[in-house]
Amino acid sequence: MPTIFFYGPELDVEKKRELIKSFTETASKLTGIDKSAFVVYLRPSSPDRVGVGGELLKDRHKRLEQEKG
Amino acid sequence: MPTIFFYGPELDVEKKRELIKSFTETASKLTGIDKSAFVVYLRPSSPDRVGVGGELLKDRHKRLEQEKG
Amino acid sequence: MPTIFFYGPELDVEKKRELIKSFTETASKLTGIDKSAFVVYLRPSSPDRVGVGGELLKDRHKRLEQEKG
Amino acid sequence: MPTIFFYGPELDVEKKRELIKSFTETASKLTGIDKSAFVVYLRPSSPDRVGVGGELLKDRHKRLEQEKG
Amino acid sequence: MPTIFFYGPELDVEKKRELIKSFTETASKLTGIDKSAFVVYLRPSSPDRVGVGGELLKDRHKRLEQEKG
Amino acid sequence: MPTIFFYGPELDVEKKRELIKSFTETASKLTGIDKSAFVVYLRPSSPDRVGVGGELLKDRHKRLEQEKG
Repeated sequence: MPTIFFYGPELDVEKKRELIKSFTETASKLTGIDKSAFVVYLRPSSPDRVGVGGELLKDRHKRLEQEKG
Repeated sequence: MPTIFFYGPELDVEKKRELIKSFTETASKLTGIDKSAFVVYLRPSSPDRVGVGGELLKDRHKRLEQEKG
Repeated sequence: MPTIFFYGPELDVEKKRELIKSFTETASKLTGIDKSAFVVYLRPSSPDRVGVGGELLKDRHKRLEQEKG
Repeated sequence: MPTIFFYGPELDVEKKRELIKSFTETASKLTGIDKSAFVVYLRPSSPDRVGVGGELLKDRHKRLEQEKG
Repeated sequence: MPTIFFYGPELDVEKKRELIKSFTETASKLTGIDKSAFVVYLRPSSPDRVGVGGELLKDRHKRLEQEKG
Repeated sequence: MPTIFFYGPELDVEKKRELIKSFTETASKLTGIDKSAFVVYLRPSSPDRVGVGGELLKDRHKRLEQEKG
């Protein structure tokens, strides 16, 4: 009974459907376990709760915007 | 210092109390570790952020409702 | 910088490659985030460390074998 | 389809069975979701891979042993 | 590409920045892996979704308040 | 009772001590919660169980070696 966790940005409902469907079909095919046994948890993380390279993601986005500016 | 994560539906406060108490007492008894060392995290997941069998749980609930019709 | 965890059976190396490639490509396409930002953790769980339906998975497999018997 | 993770010491097989059974029955009763939908992952952590109070658990055990002397 | 999860209280933005910076610098120095490869997820847990010692954290806080009187 | 998970390379025991000590002291200072309440889990991941940018980390290491070659 495999379980998949996805930590990433919030997605709209149509993309959630596609992500869950694709992850489940791929993993079912590769493991040989029936699709019905798979659970996928989407755990969104907002940019003020993630750090990348030691920097709050929100700050990083702002900095990259300004550098492009 | 064991740690338990529960990914499931949101519960009312009385049920949260029972779940935390029961999980902790069971695990303390079986491990021989004092109850004070246990932490339980309740991590609710809404039906529009979980996939089961390749299908968004919200869609699955709706489909099952309609099939019962 | 999204992160994916896969808790399931141990896979051979070729299947690991396919799973990582497929998950990353799907999630990159749906989020619009470059593939290079994705990390996938494969966290295998042996049947003597998973419970399904209240039953140790190892016991469940044995029981199902016997019932097919 | 709730999922439970238990991070703690390694258990013998009989205790694993009890823990999985008890967690699942408790959570099924409190959520109203059928037992068959529950997955429990036992994720053992050895004392040289856990820190408590800023101290490696292995060191802490040794220190407490010596203090008891 | 290491990943760090922090389950704890909600922090203000300045403390989030410090925590992410410090964790990343420490882990980069100890692993020898470049800071740019690290992701830190802050996963806050409110006191009505955590249990400590078998007791809902919210209840525990209230009880300790009353005992201090 | 905060909890920290570190998914990364295996470390020698002295580095584990430093990482646990530093993470705990930083997080204790920033949250105002006593160090004794912190648990850190080190969850090593070998390069044949991690994917980065859609590629098995083991393969990526080999490729980068060859490109430097």
